[in-house]
Amino acid sequence: MSQEMSHDEVQAALERSPFMSFMKLKLVSLDQAAQRIVLKMPMRAEFERGAGTGQWHGGAIASLIDIAGDYALVMKVGGGVPTVNFRTDFLRPAMNTDLAATATVRRAGRTIAVVDIDVTDDNGKLCAIGRGTYLPTIG
Amino acid sequence: MSQEMSHDEVQAALERSPFMSFMKLKLVSLDQAAQRIVLKMPMRAEFERGAGTGQWHGGAIASLIDIAGDYALVMKVGGGVPTVNFRTDFLRPAMNTDLAATATVRRAGRTIAVVDIDVTDDNGKLCAIGRGTYLPTIG
Amino acid sequence: MSQEMSHDEVQAALERSPFMSFMKLKLVSLDQAAQRIVLKMPMRAEFERGAGTGQWHGGAIASLIDIAGDYALVMKVGGGVPTVNFRTDFLRPAMNTDLAATATVRRAGRTIAVVDIDVTDDNGKLCAIGRGTYLPTIG
Amino acid sequence: MSQEMSHDEVQAALERSPFMSFMKLKLVSLDQAAQRIVLKMPMRAEFERGAGTGQWHGGAIASLIDIAGDYALVMKVGGGVPTVNFRTDFLRPAMNTDLAATATVRRAGRTIAVVDIDVTDDNGKLCAIGRGTYLPTIG
Repeated sequence: MSQEMSHDEVQAALERSPFMSFMKLKLVSLDQAAQRIVLKMPMRAEFERGAGTGQWHGGAIASLIDIAGDYALVMKVGGGVPTVNFRTDFLRPAMNTDLAATATVRRAGRTIAVVDIDVTDDNGKLCAIGRGTYLPTIG
Repeated sequence: MSQEMSHDEVQAALERSPFMSFMKLKLVSLDQAAQRIVLKMPMRAEFERGAGTGQWHGGAIASLIDIAGDYALVMKVGGGVPTVNFRTDFLRPAMNTDLAATATVRRAGRTIAVVDIDVTDDNGKLCAIGRGTYLPTIG
Repeated sequence: MSQEMSHDEVQAALERSPFMSFMKLKLVSLDQAAQRIVLKMPMRAEFERGAGTGQWHGGAIASLIDIAGDYALVMKVGGGVPTVNFRTDFLRPAMNTDLAATATVRRAGRTIAVVDIDVTDDNGKLCAIGRGTYLPTIG
Repeated sequence: MSQEMSHDEVQAALERSPFMSFMKLKLVSLDQAAQRIVLKMPMRAEFERGAGTGQWHGGAIASLIDIAGDYALVMKVGGGVPTVNFRTDFLRPAMNTDLAATATVRRAGRTIAVVDIDVTDDNGKLCAIGRGTYLPTIG
C-alpha cells in the first residue's frame, strides 16, 4: 500500500503544485523511520505582513504548516493526502528570516493521521507551531 | 479607544499589506453593530493546488480565514490585531470559484477576542470554516 | 444506513454511559432536519473549579461540548460516534448556573463530520464554544 | 512576579479544587527548568465511556489535558491560570489503565502561554494529545 518516496521525488512533488511552487519550498531532509520531514521556505516580497517590515504574514506561515504536515505523510503514502483540519499557534513574530518547518507524525492510524509541525527562524527560535489531522488512506 | 473604520479605510488597509494585496482581497460589506465583515478573494493561478485543476490550495483558504477573522476586529479597533491561534476545517474542495469569507465576532473581551469565519464558494456552498483567537488590545 | 433515534432513545443512551450518567445530562430538544441537538447539564459539587465559588471547571464544560457534538450525530447514525478531535474556547466564566449546549452539524461527509457547539448559561449568555470532528461512519 | 511552587504545594493545590479532587490527580514530577509537569489520574467508575468496558470517556481525558497544561504554568506563576482555549486529539482508545499527562510549556510570553500535553497509558502508549493557550499574567 505505502510507496515510500525518495528525496528527489518529494522535491519534484513540491514543485508540481502551483501554490507550493510559488512558495519555493525546499526539502531539507526526510526520515522515513522517524516519520519526520523538514522543509525550508525563503522570504519573498509577497509574504510580507507590512511593506518594508520584513515580517512574515501569518497566512504564509499557516500555509507552510499545512504543507509540511501533509508531506510528512505524502513521503510515506506516495501521493496527495487531504487535510481534515489544522491548528496554527503563533509564538513569536518571524522577521527577516527564512522559515524551516519540521513535521513529525504523532499517529498514523488506518483512517486518521495526526502530525505536529514546528516552525523556526534562522536562529532556531520557535516562531509558530501547528497540529494537523489528515486522511492518509485517500492518498 | 476604539476607532471605527469606514468601508474605504478597511479596503485601503487590505491593500497596504504586500501579502493581502497579493491576495487581491475585496471588502464586500462590514457591519459594525453585528461585528461582521465579508471579504472576497478571486482565484489566481498561484493559489491552485494542482496545475490545471482549478482547486484552491488549503493554505490560501487558511490565509483568507486568518485575515477575515482579523479584520472583523480591525474595523472596530482601527489597526493591526495579532492572531494568537486559529483552527481551519476543510469541509469541501473549492473548485473554479472565488471565495467569500464571512467573519463574525463571537466574543470581544478586554484581552482576548474570538471570531468565527465561514468560507463559501460562488454557489454559497460552505467550503471551510475557521475559528481564531486574537489580541485586540494590542491593535 | 442511518437510523434516526427518538427523544426517548437519545435520553436513554445518555444515561447508559457511566460518565454521561454522572453528568446528569438531559436532552432538551432534537431536530433531525436542522441536525441540531440541545442538552442541559446541572451544576453539581464535583464540577466546581474552586470550593464554594459556584464556578464551573473548564474540564466539565469541555466534556459537555464533546458529548453534545457527538450526539448531534448519534441521533442520526443511531449509535456511538468516535471523536477525532475538538477545540474548546472559553468566553466567560460560568457561575452558579446550569449549562445548555446547542450542537449543530456543519458538515456530515462520508468519512468526516464537523459540529459546532455553543454553551450558554441560565441567562442565555455564551460561556464557551466548541468545534469537533467526528467519524460518523464508524458509528 | 513568579513564585515557584514546591511539589507539596502543587499537590495541595490539585486537591483544593472540588473538580480536580474528584479526579484524584497525583503529581508525579515537576521540572521548573524544563517547564514540564507530569500528572497521573486513576481510572474510576464514573469516567467509563460504556458500562463495564474499562474505556476512558474522552471528556475525562480532555479535562486531564486542560488541567495538566494549566499546572505546567501554575507551578511557575504560583496560582490559577485561566485557559483561553485548547485542542484535544484522540489517538487511541484508553482501556483499563491509569493515565499520565506530561505537559510542556512551548512558549510563555508576557500575555499568552502555549503548552503541549501528551497523555499515555500504563504501557507508555500515546492515547491523546492536547495543546492549550493560557493567560499566565492573570494568575
